[in-house]
Amino acid sequence: MNLDDFRITAGKSFKLADFSAKSKPLSGGAKAIDQARVAEISEWLDAQQDIFYAEHSRKLLVILQGMDTSGKDGTVRGVFRSFDPLGLRVVSFKSPTPEELARDYLWRVHAQVPRKGEIVVFNRSHYEDVLITRVHGWIDDAECARRYRQIRAFEQMLAETGTTIVKCFLHISKDEQKERLEQRIGDPQKHWKFDAQDLAERKFWHEYQQAYEDAIAATATPECPWYIVPADSKTHRNVMVAEILRAVFARLKPEYPPPKPELAKLVVE
Amino acid sequence: MNLDDFRITAGKSFKLADFSAKSKPLSGGAKAIDQARVAEISEWLDAQQDIFYAEHSRKLLVILQGMDTSGKDGTVRGVFRSFDPLGLRVVSFKSPTPEELARDYLWRVHAQVPRKGEIVVFNRSHYEDVLITRVHGWIDDAECARRYRQIRAFEQMLAETGTTIVKCFLHISKDEQKERLEQRIGDPQKHWKFDAQDLAERKFWHEYQQAYEDAIAATATPECPWYIVPADSKTHRNVMVAEILRAVFARLKPEYPPPKPELAKLVVE
Repeated sequence: MNLDDFRITAGKSFKLADFSAKSKPLSGGAKAIDQARVAEISEWLDAQQDIFYAEHSRKLLVILQGMDTSGKDGTVRGVFRSFDPLGLRVVSFKSPTPEELARDYLWRVHAQVPRKGEIVVFNRSHYEDVLITRVHGWIDDAECARRYRQIRAFEQMLAETGTTIVKCFLHISKDEQKERLEQRIGDPQKHWKFDAQDLAERKFWHEYQQAYEDAIAATATPECPWYIVPADSKTHRNVMVAEILRAVFARLKPEYPPPKPELAKLVVE
Repeated sequence: MNLDDFRITAGKSFKLADFSAKSKPLSGGAKAIDQARVAEISEWLDAQQDIFYAEHSRKLLVILQGMDTSGKDGTVRGVFRSFDPLGLRVVSFKSPTPEELARDYLWRVHAQVPRKGEIVVFNRSHYEDVLITRVHGWIDDAECARRYRQIRAFEQMLAETGTTIVKCFLHISKDEQKERLEQRIGDPQKHWKFDAQDLAERKFWHEYQQAYEDAIAATATPECPWYIVPADSKTHRNVMVAEILRAVFARLKPEYPPPKPELAKLVVE
């Protein structure tokens, strides 16, 4: 199967049910093979980032979304650790603070977009404002439609001003979430990651899936595509996110800034 | 030689000339041995950071200072890349913007201090405000003395409110800088890193060394020590910074938050 089959560029006919969270379409079989593949891609990405940083011209924004326990943190660790910390920034969005709530919902997000040459990963994002808010009825359908439009316009502006945007939905099954929550409960060293609220939210599983489907359909465009990442397998998830990044850099083709011939005359005393 | 010999906790009797930039006091001999040592420490540090992040209580601030080409970027890449990007943030301070200049010099720095569980690396810092400013006479001795006091008070406050501060002076020789500048000039792919201003600043080598010596002497305290890192050898530099971090975490002894026994009753449906 091809990466493009998981790339959503238009909402028409998009159904989340067409994608299996359990599947491993990009897997080479054994776990070790997939891990070696991530390592190999990482090495190439590292070199690409070096040039992207030196180029100091374009920007890359990767948005990670997914249900609780879907592996957003694990993706950062498993895939993005290969990058030089100098040119990478991870921003984790939590419940908005009073300061943030006193502004529009895009305010805190806009403040964190990547600068030239920088790769920024959003660990959750403005999409929470059309997900949890909608599931709990804090916004009505009219407001949600308005936000979809605002988000499209916001992301289009970022794209037009030099930011490549890649949005990844880490797609896990309800069974897999159960297993991961039970693991957290069973391992005292993971209790700090466990929030009783996660169990309450799990009761809205179906509503969340619907909200994700609608949000993805409403905001997938050729410039700002969504990728549906089957993520029940952590190794497969890492392979696919690494492949997505490989495709991004293969298209961007970063280049070192032109040499400065005038430097040849310089003498260091 | 011992790491403590390079740890400055008081200004009295500190002379930069007592330290050789060319030396490799912590080296095990061959380059490969030192690289393996960094890799081994990195693995341990990675595990420590995981707990430090989970602990979500204390903060770590590492300040990297040094002459142009002293290897600040290289240290980030060589040592800090082993950390999970989720809990690491690198902040590179450039020439202050008009917005920043409209405030006191600690304003932009304070805005970037680490949060609980976070490791932040300052790539340059507020120390520039007692270095370049002083070398060029933009501040007089009285103002410089005031700033030393302000910096001591600022750092003490951070330390007292839970931030471990480690300040590293990457110590290179004038000869080594010459070589590195010539390398940048000779390699077209490194021209983007070359700033003609670096040559102008190099003329003030002696003044900068004096400014560093004074600044270190004035701001080294037991809570906020400076480390003098012989850095003509990049491998040795990485070994020493890694060892400094090992010593920090060995002292901090991060711990997972206590388990929550009440979770045992929970059932995931």
